[in-house]
Amino acid sequence: MSIKLNYENVGLRDHELEYVRPLAEAAFGTLTRHTGPGHEMLGWLELPYTYDKEEFARIKAAAKRIQEQSQVLVVIGIGGSYLGARAGLEFVKGPFGNQLREKGVEVYFAGSNLSADYMQDILNIIGERDFSVNVISKSGTTTEPAAAFRIFRAELERRYGISGARDRIYATTDRTKGALREMAEQKGYKTFVVPDNIGGRFSCLSAVGLLPMAAGGMDIDRVMEGCLHSCEVYENPNFLGNDVMLYAALRFLMLMKGKRVELLASYEPALTMFGEWYKQLMAESEGKDGKGLFPVSANFTTDLHSIGQFIQDGSRIMFETVLWVEHTRHTLTIPNDPVNADGLNFAAGVSLQEMNEKAMKGTLLAHVDGGAPNLIITLDRLDDYTFGELVYFFWKSLAVSGYMIGVNPFDQPGVEAYKKNMFALLGKPGYENMQEALEARLKS
Amino acid sequence: MSIKLNYENVGLRDHELEYVRPLAEAAFGTLTRHTGPGHEMLGWLELPYTYDKEEFARIKAAAKRIQEQSQVLVVIGIGGSYLGARAGLEFVKGPFGNQLREKGVEVYFAGSNLSADYMQDILNIIGERDFSVNVISKSGTTTEPAAAFRIFRAELERRYGISGARDRIYATTDRTKGALREMAEQKGYKTFVVPDNIGGRFSCLSAVGLLPMAAGGMDIDRVMEGCLHSCEVYENPNFLGNDVMLYAALRFLMLMKGKRVELLASYEPALTMFGEWYKQLMAESEGKDGKGLFPVSANFTTDLHSIGQFIQDGSRIMFETVLWVEHTRHTLTIPNDPVNADGLNFAAGVSLQEMNEKAMKGTLLAHVDGGAPNLIITLDRLDDYTFGELVYFFWKSLAVSGYMIGVNPFDQPGVEAYKKNMFALLGKPGYENMQEALEARLKS
Repeated sequence: MSIKLNYENVGLRDHELEYVRPLAEAAFGTLTRHTGPGHEMLGWLELPYTYDKEEFARIKAAAKRIQEQSQVLVVIGIGGSYLGARAGLEFVKGPFGNQLREKGVEVYFAGSNLSADYMQDILNIIGERDFSVNVISKSGTTTEPAAAFRIFRAELERRYGISGARDRIYATTDRTKGALREMAEQKGYKTFVVPDNIGGRFSCLSAVGLLPMAAGGMDIDRVMEGCLHSCEVYENPNFLGNDVMLYAALRFLMLMKGKRVELLASYEPALTMFGEWYKQLMAESEGKDGKGLFPVSANFTTDLHSIGQFIQDGSRIMFETVLWVEHTRHTLTIPNDPVNADGLNFAAGVSLQEMNEKAMKGTLLAHVDGGAPNLIITLDRLDDYTFGELVYFFWKSLAVSGYMIGVNPFDQPGVEAYKKNMFALLGKPGYENMQEALEARLKS
Repeated sequence: MSIKLNYENVGLRDHELEYVRPLAEAAFGTLTRHTGPGHEMLGWLELPYTYDKEEFARIKAAAKRIQEQSQVLVVIGIGGSYLGARAGLEFVKGPFGNQLREKGVEVYFAGSNLSADYMQDILNIIGERDFSVNVISKSGTTTEPAAAFRIFRAELERRYGISGARDRIYATTDRTKGALREMAEQKGYKTFVVPDNIGGRFSCLSAVGLLPMAAGGMDIDRVMEGCLHSCEVYENPNFLGNDVMLYAALRFLMLMKGKRVELLASYEPALTMFGEWYKQLMAESEGKDGKGLFPVSANFTTDLHSIGQFIQDGSRIMFETVLWVEHTRHTLTIPNDPVNADGLNFAAGVSLQEMNEKAMKGTLLAHVDGGAPNLIITLDRLDDYTFGELVYFFWKSLAVSGYMIGVNPFDQPGVEAYKKNMFALLGKPGYENMQEALEARLKS
């Protein structure tokens, strides 16, 4: 296993894990026996065994085709149709992947906001270069991606004509129904499937995430191998031998002790978007019925000079889960300086990674001393395989955790509220009755 | 004033602001009379009147010189020596400023972490192109920037020789003392001053932030004009007429009502780094003595499909402060589609900005209905002037807020804890006694 959980610094008494063990085991059983709320959305649980191999081959072929026909891929999606692929690409390629152009096409994400400036910037970055579009939407009617798709499709059709555009649009959508499925079949786009039994935040190892990842240069075979490995390892019904159950139990204990915020901290900027992916997974799964640990992410040591003061000595509402990466892609060493004005010669010849590790360990002890318990998840390295492993670890642990706090981890009813109001304010047919009432509230 | 505070959706009873008015006024008086803890660090309070005009001219000249000699500027700094300039550049140029290359040099930030991959990526992005370095450190001995400066200085000297490197290094540091000041004078670097009476998180409108902003193409005259305007407007001693006092009082009320988290949400990705700047300002100023609202930031509508579920219906620990931008740089309009498969024709001809506004208003009402009070700060547009205004607004309001919760808003003692442990673990001279004890704890 290239990921490991360490909970020595959480500050538990000896009996505490043992006392919550029955709860974690019950939640684990509810999950694995498919008997809990939302059990119809467990398509991710055995995904590495069950995924569609024929479609997988088509995804790889489409990625190759995109790399041949374009320098840029615009991925249009929001929420789960956006975060996983971006998290994966930055996990493996780092935050500057598009600028370094070491492998795969440049990938930009649109349709996840309504900012005109953001969308125009992407159009300008593309410039005269060739681009393709992967539009991802189960329904095809979600406002943000639908709006972006209209704009980028118009641009493709302007440049390449109707039939040229058809050859550059890849639609990932419902298998049989919905607006995007209908449009794709009518127009003749290549299509891929958003599975029925996998929710958005669990969808990044379906076509939803795999096509952008593959086009951007990731090795999706290795991603699925990592996912398979996690799937096998975390079937273990032995509580103390299964990090998925342990992590869920530890989060539950933190909540019981009054913590309100979980801070996912990493020491690699390449994990910034993984933090965003984690935030969706946690917040949408557990933030309901007035419950849940609020998920936050941070980059260390950067943010030790920002929110570090608060973690050390502010209101005692948080614990930390640290993602630590053992091996970096590159090695850099502190040069010696005969003058030593900065007093750093004690570290001359030391690698940055070693300094980073000392910073991590020093921070760990400092924060524990300050009253912020620390969990550590150690990753071997930031590669395709580990991404697959880690995603599955968080999926399954979150599902157990959600059942431990008594929520349905697989729905997200609260996401509809803003959409309905937005539709009403925009005058969408069917929402006329709400419009007047909302406008009256805004004017008051 | 191009920024406005709206607190109609916070859900206060009529008397509530009036009842805390004496507290806000007392805190405001403590600040403006320089009688509170940390009052020796109030150099920012009248900065737009008192700043060094001769140095300001030298900053503009240096920025011009950097633009002539280089395509890339590497800014080396951490915390307050990093966040303000980056926030400003993205505020004005958007998140893709380095790729769009519309004005100024490309600016990359190093020395704010210990990631070898991150640093090597920046070296690779520079490639064979010419670059300059602005190293920013009051002491010159902070580990992260000192390590990065050794690496980038070595690269400059390798490429351009000692004297060529001297011409490309700009040091912003203490006026008279410290390791970087000594090195700069010895080596003959151009120098700029980190003022003595301005702490890191209040330093972005000194040379610390102004040089990178100017080199990256910002109009720093306009920035200072905006700052001056705020400085004048927020001198108003009338509580209900001064948004600085009102925002501080509203945050205080939220804390009193049990909120633990303030979420700064914006609808423009260009504000992402402003959110990071805000997090440092708030967390370092208030997160001490076990107190403080924990500051978090989000991008909407993106994150409505991530943490949106939690905000709507999770644990009721947060309120929101929304940054709304009235005018975007670009205009894009939803194209009409005769087929209308996505059902979006009801919005054909509508601008993205108008849709974004309906999303903001719809979200506001949805979140208020869900029990998350909302404040709105409306900005006219994301330009240099507004950046100067907004920075000062947050500085002064935060200072009032800090005094209202009874902390020294101008120190950050908790930031030292991790540094000391890191030094000890690295075997830095002077920390030998700690080293053994820490290592024993890590092994246990």
